[in-house]
Amino acid sequence: MTLDDCKCLDAQDPLAPLRDQFTLPDGVIYLDGNSLGVLPSAAPARIAEAVSHEWGQGLIRSWNSAGWFDLPQRLGDKVGRLIGAAPGEVVCTDSTSINLYKVLFAAIAQAKADPKRRLVVSERSNFPTDLYIAESLCESHGLQLKLIDASDLPGVLTEEVAVLMLTHVNYRTGAMHDMTAITAAAHAAGALTVWDLAHSAGAVPVALNESNADFAIGCGYKYLNGGPGAPAFVWVHTRHAGQFRQPLSGWWGHAAPFEFTPHYRPAPGVGRYLCGTQPILSLTGLECGLDTVLAAEPLGGMTALRKKSLALTDAFINLTEQRCPGLFNLVTPREHAQRGSQVCLSLADQRTPTQAYAIVQALIARGVIGDYRGGDEQMPDILRFGFTPLYLGFEDVWNAVEHLVQVMTLEEWRKSEFNQINAVT
Amino acid sequence: MTLDDCKCLDAQDPLAPLRDQFTLPDGVIYLDGNSLGVLPSAAPARIAEAVSHEWGQGLIRSWNSAGWFDLPQRLGDKVGRLIGAAPGEVVCTDSTSINLYKVLFAAIAQAKADPKRRLVVSERSNFPTDLYIAESLCESHGLQLKLIDASDLPGVLTEEVAVLMLTHVNYRTGAMHDMTAITAAAHAAGALTVWDLAHSAGAVPVALNESNADFAIGCGYKYLNGGPGAPAFVWVHTRHAGQFRQPLSGWWGHAAPFEFTPHYRPAPGVGRYLCGTQPILSLTGLECGLDTVLAAEPLGGMTALRKKSLALTDAFINLTEQRCPGLFNLVTPREHAQRGSQVCLSLADQRTPTQAYAIVQALIARGVIGDYRGGDEQMPDILRFGFTPLYLGFEDVWNAVEHLVQVMTLEEWRKSEFNQINAVT
Repeated sequence: MTLDDCKCLDAQDPLAPLRDQFTLPDGVIYLDGNSLGVLPSAAPARIAEAVSHEWGQGLIRSWNSAGWFDLPQRLGDKVGRLIGAAPGEVVCTDSTSINLYKVLFAAIAQAKADPKRRLVVSERSNFPTDLYIAESLCESHGLQLKLIDASDLPGVLTEEVAVLMLTHVNYRTGAMHDMTAITAAAHAAGALTVWDLAHSAGAVPVALNESNADFAIGCGYKYLNGGPGAPAFVWVHTRHAGQFRQPLSGWWGHAAPFEFTPHYRPAPGVGRYLCGTQPILSLTGLECGLDTVLAAEPLGGMTALRKKSLALTDAFINLTEQRCPGLFNLVTPREHAQRGSQVCLSLADQRTPTQAYAIVQALIARGVIGDYRGGDEQMPDILRFGFTPLYLGFEDVWNAVEHLVQVMTLEEWRKSEFNQINAVT
Repeated sequence: MTLDDCKCLDAQDPLAPLRDQFTLPDGVIYLDGNSLGVLPSAAPARIAEAVSHEWGQGLIRSWNSAGWFDLPQRLGDKVGRLIGAAPGEVVCTDSTSINLYKVLFAAIAQAKADPKRRLVVSERSNFPTDLYIAESLCESHGLQLKLIDASDLPGVLTEEVAVLMLTHVNYRTGAMHDMTAITAAAHAAGALTVWDLAHSAGAVPVALNESNADFAIGCGYKYLNGGPGAPAFVWVHTRHAGQFRQPLSGWWGHAAPFEFTPHYRPAPGVGRYLCGTQPILSLTGLECGLDTVLAAEPLGGMTALRKKSLALTDAFINLTEQRCPGLFNLVTPREHAQRGSQVCLSLADQRTPTQAYAIVQALIARGVIGDYRGGDEQMPDILRFGFTPLYLGFEDVWNAVEHLVQVMTLEEWRKSEFNQINAVT
């Protein structure tokens, strides 16, 4: 694969015009859309309108006139189109962690009606916040959190399992589960499933209803480009939606929030997963982000985005192996069916604990923004690169690898300024 | 009191220049800052910078370079200056309802170590979302929620009471509790206190540490002018701050969030009350709002704001009684020590169920924005007017009452368009 091949692939790319929807810094190749999506060009004006016109001029009237009160449902319907959920099944609200608390509480409450079901099962390598929330709920409900490896599935699904809680695409490795098969196995064992779509929504095709999943939550600010800390989303299969009292029973999830009655009466359906008043400015940003992904619908939608995503990650894998032979191990599965929209590498030769970190820093200094996730005894330090087909092309992939080659050849990772670990990202 | 008196009071008002901090719609007298504060003039440019520069250009790097990761603490310290809390004791995060869930869970967990303490006590007229959250937690913890009237205090504080949960200034009536005295009574009975400051922060002086309160939460978008749905805040007395595992144990409340360890280890102090990633754009708006209130510090701060607030509400009460004699009952306490920063009226003669609503709508059509809260068997329908000394003057009060006189004299509330109840506020 050559630079010309990449240019040729870009020239033939039917999704290439989608890049015009975004404003990216000059000189940056952004491979971190799996952590924070880029700025939709429509967002500054739209958010400014929400600030100056809706808030400033409309004031309290905007709850009706600007549709603020409907935002969680309206945006939820947009998310639904990307994850195989029907209108009315999704709301955008709160954070991923908080939404997980709601649905995991609900799932546990249902499953533990059967006293022998005393386990919540998740992956040891799941995103930590998911494990922390599960730990808390298991403690409250007298259940046990059992951490497994992906390879333990489906064998671990015994009649003791109340809930199987998985992240569809692993944040570290980019490995993707077969949601349909695992859900079927969980149901066969009498367990409920909770899926975290943080690295799936807008990144890979998801078909929640078709997969017969039970509960799902996900993030608004990664592949959905909703802006820093944009509200998250929550979905519940309609067979469960009307049954639960989720514990964060705030006024916005009440059946009649403006009756101000002293007793809680949950709204029908997913509306009961709302709690308190939502951050309208951040929701406004989220809508701009969602619209950039939905703009792919006339061009083939998530299927077309997926096809390009796999081509981009294939190209990155191939070019890295071709141009940095022997330097890296591929952590992300090579098989398409098991790969999300990111590629993670570990060092074949782990010389110093901070070297992977320093390589990422050296790349960032060159304008190639990926990120680093530290390892432990069981998992290596990784270099993580997210590929968002909405705004990345094949020439970007070529250039990113070219910079990686330079960093390795010139041993830029030795520089002391690249070896001071910052707090964040 | 005449229009000239009002103009004279405005001319002598040392806080009058603070109004220049805000952008208000032309022709509007805004008496709803207790529901949604107005737009700080600095906010559009500041939020635009966060959108275009921090998000658009800085991207993921802004977690460090733009200080996003410190926002909850940095803004929390600003809130702390307004509510008598020390630096490091407050964080801005999530919604009021969710923060209440965290602190009430923590308070219950501590209090129920004594098995005879099986009651959470609150006011029947408390803001409903507070009661809904308490209902949920009481159910989970096997406690009972006992609803009382304010006049039942302190007698109701028996050794069965685990937690006394009150809103400092009542959202409907504007009645204010004596936080110090009630907290002392609760402690004498062995109970913990949870205070909701939604209608207090930025509205009346609050001295949490001096009052020896236990837990407090409050709202960012009312008197703090943080913008629609701006994140809320949470405070915990340092004697409790390090003891609890609050149940919404997300990654941001972890002692070392970037170690990505599989087990939760709560951050020291109030940091553990953080959960998931926060909506940065809405937090940015909140900071602009906080700065408008802190701008009063060189002019006497909350003490000076309180003095003007009482003068404004006195003026409104007096003018209403003088110019609409016999038409309204004053629902808000006349006594200063018991009054928040709002005035609520009910109709002396309740002719039709929607008349109070229609009066509010007729006022809104005239540019006088207050709001309506429906009553029930125990509480009358009310017209609710919030007075924010940062941007209201005495001539505004005069003009508001003048419009009210006109609405009543011309019986504008009879018009059908003012009698169609909308969904919201």
